Amino acid sequence: MNILKNLLWPEIEELIDLKEWKILKNILSEWDIPNLVELIKEVDDKNKIIIFRILPKNISNELFSEIDYEDQKVILSKMTDQQIKEILLELEPDDRTMLFEELPGKILQKYLNLLPDEERKEALELFGYPEESVGRLMTPNYTAVRPEWTIKKALEHIKERGYKSETINVIYITDEKWHFLDALELKKFILASPELLVKDIMDYIFVTLSPYDDREKAVSLMRHYNLSALPVVDSDNILVGIVTFDDVMDVAKEEATEDFHKTAGILPLEENYLKIDIRKLFLKRIGWLLSLVFINIFSGAIISRFENLIMTFVALVFFMPLLNDSAGNAGSQSATLIIRFMATNEMKWKDGLIILLKDFFVAILLAIAMGISVFLLGMFRGGIRVSIVASLAMFTIIVISSILGTILPLILKAFRIDPATASSPLITSLADIISVTVYFTIAKIILF
Amino acid sequence: MNILKNLLWPEIEELIDLKEWKILKNILSEWDIPNLVELIKEVDDKNKIIIFRILPKNISNELFSEIDYEDQKVILSKMTDQQIKEILLELEPDDRTMLFEELPGKILQKYLNLLPDEERKEALELFGYPEESVGRLMTPNYTAVRPEWTIKKALEHIKERGYKSETINVIYITDEKWHFLDALELKKFILASPELLVKDIMDYIFVTLSPYDDREKAVSLMRHYNLSALPVVDSDNILVGIVTFDDVMDVAKEEATEDFHKTAGILPLEENYLKIDIRKLFLKRIGWLLSLVFINIFSGAIISRFENLIMTFVALVFFMPLLNDSAGNAGSQSATLIIRFMATNEMKWKDGLIILLKDFFVAILLAIAMGISVFLLGMFRGGIRVSIVASLAMFTIIVISSILGTILPLILKAFRIDPATASSPLITSLADIISVTVYFTIAKIILF
Repeated sequence: MNILKNLLWPEIEELIDLKEWKILKNILSEWDIPNLVELIKEVDDKNKIIIFRILPKNISNELFSEIDYEDQKVILSKMTDQQIKEILLELEPDDRTMLFEELPGKILQKYLNLLPDEERKEALELFGYPEESVGRLMTPNYTAVRPEWTIKKALEHIKERGYKSETINVIYITDEKWHFLDALELKKFILASPELLVKDIMDYIFVTLSPYDDREKAVSLMRHYNLSALPVVDSDNILVGIVTFDDVMDVAKEEATEDFHKTAGILPLEENYLKIDIRKLFLKRIGWLLSLVFINIFSGAIISRFENLIMTFVALVFFMPLLNDSAGNAGSQSATLIIRFMATNEMKWKDGLIILLKDFFVAILLAIAMGISVFLLGMFRGGIRVSIVASLAMFTIIVISSILGTILPLILKAFRIDPATASSPLITSLADIISVTVYFTIAKIILF
Repeated sequence: MNILKNLLWPEIEELIDLKEWKILKNILSEWDIPNLVELIKEVDDKNKIIIFRILPKNISNELFSEIDYEDQKVILSKMTDQQIKEILLELEPDDRTMLFEELPGKILQKYLNLLPDEERKEALELFGYPEESVGRLMTPNYTAVRPEWTIKKALEHIKERGYKSETINVIYITDEKWHFLDALELKKFILASPELLVKDIMDYIFVTLSPYDDREKAVSLMRHYNLSALPVVDSDNILVGIVTFDDVMDVAKEEATEDFHKTAGILPLEENYLKIDIRKLFLKRIGWLLSLVFINIFSGAIISRFENLIMTFVALVFFMPLLNDSAGNAGSQSATLIIRFMATNEMKWKDGLIILLKDFFVAILLAIAMGISVFLLGMFRGGIRVSIVASLAMFTIIVISSILGTILPLILKAFRIDPATASSPLITSLADIISVTVYFTIAKIILF
């Protein structure tokens, strides 16, 4: 980190408090973008706008594309139409699409109207692709060369065109009609003799995406093949854009966060936890909580059928939370293992069988260990008979819930539902039904 | 994807079955690396080795660095010492370190001894950094130029040195003693006039890592600043290596997987789920399951103190799983939200307070909704009095567990323990204790 500049932080805060804008302007104009991004993040909304305004235009334009959407929205809301237009035009097309996605419909329409015809058309085109698709992620600003050019001519073209390109780490080779032919690292151009032709160094080793592919495919291909940019071609093999590693890293993070939240029975948040409002957060959480109330009607109903048994042996109730929790925990462990495996690997059905078998054996071992520990615990608390009941129930429950935890995501996948829907809360509630049924049935057989 | 070649798959499988190695050799020598990687992954161990052996040496060497560690181990195990040495020398230093980390101590020692002095020293140096540190991730193969060189000379140097470098997308600027001065994208060199000096285009905008930094820092810096490679400098500001985006993407995936597993009370796996053996998997899962048995002693003990109450109002038991589960679910939701937020953001204490406050208000809303739904449900099942007890209990329990779910990770963080340790199973068990205490206490007050 640029430590020297960070040392100035307390001083900057003071200047903001004192509203010393002129001095601030002089200091901040010397700062680099990453530090300015931090600063904007740190100060309150009013100061964000002031800082943004005092910066020289070339800096503020570059800064804008680096700050959070929330901050972008705050800043745009206080700009004149002319200023908004300028800022929007300075953004890379993919950054612009991402900002637009975050805007409410009315404001989006207004901003779109501010753009010149060509840019508006481009924005609308990028918008034509489904949400979470590669099309929404790509930028049309790539650099392409032709196979019949010399390396020298290609390098000159790269030099001319490079400023406009989002990356020139990878150079694309197309014919005159923009049909995609190959992708080569800039490295190869630099290292080749200038008099060779581009087609001499072409290797036809590439992977391509379709704009309709799920953006998770971009993540897995980039990770798998260690590429810093991927070409996107349409059904006619025309190179329509590229996806770069920085966007893909953000997607990977968002997708992982979504899966985390799903695992706990929370609908995807879309916004930062710190910024989402309370009403939205409530709605994202209440759905699963309420649904599970209804699944729990079953466990309640099952328990009520054993009313007499419970009245006779109240000690049975002492073990209920333990058995229910253990069932839920074992089930969630299995579910988490297979859900995360499916999210990071292309799982074949054969793999599913291996995992199921493996889970079965592990479940037996876990069930034995848990059964023994409950037996010892039961001896203290409920006497030998209750103890035997609890430990037999524990054994059976662990095996069944563990297998349920593995099978449920597999079934969901078979029906093309996101396996992460088999969240821990769902598994827990299902495991409860299994748990009370098994427990009280065993108790009835042994104790009555 | 290289679709044409994928079409050949069934044919290849047949050739392997028929042991037509010669024909296979001719076909496979024409394949590109990504397809060969897929092939190696697909076939059984014996065929992995055969395929690897029939490939021309330049292809097999490149292929080796791309395949899984497990496959690398299988292949190395059947090679002569001379062959192993050649393969190891062909690997990039960072890939070599990663392979070495996967090897059992004895085999590692053997392989280290096969390396020439210089490479052995390098490997041992990279090994000197702590596990999960940036030092383990970096490669010393970067390209550096001096500030006083012309762009022309720098480009010539890049051309000469480029072959050996892991990436030349970013070029590093150092003095003669390898003190780090700046990092510039190759792009800037290409786009600058050849007669300028390197120092004329230097911008002094950079972020650096220390080899002792946690590798998660590399992930967050790279994501934040959209850089495809980060320089690593030691305490004397000497450029000791670079970390590239491909390694960082793998780390991001591994760290997310670890957190997922922790959330479900599973210790980090280190190996692929498909490949880890049953004994290890058992040990990774049993720890938390057994610990929670002991926490559940408390909920059992608390219930036993309400024995008389339960005998009089057995209907109270019907609602136990529902209340326990809802407590656990609300607690896990809150915990997951804050744990994931901390994993992906640098959280300040102020943010923690905002989140806590927000969680409190959301919890109240959730508690009201859940309280009402349980009241309606209770009317069917246990009559008005039990119904009032259950819904009051639900309200109180949801608020307390939700706040517990937010506070526990914050407390762990304050003690510098990984917040993800506040796994769903732990929260569930603690929520149970709260749940039965609140429920039966309210019941006693209202019903007796």
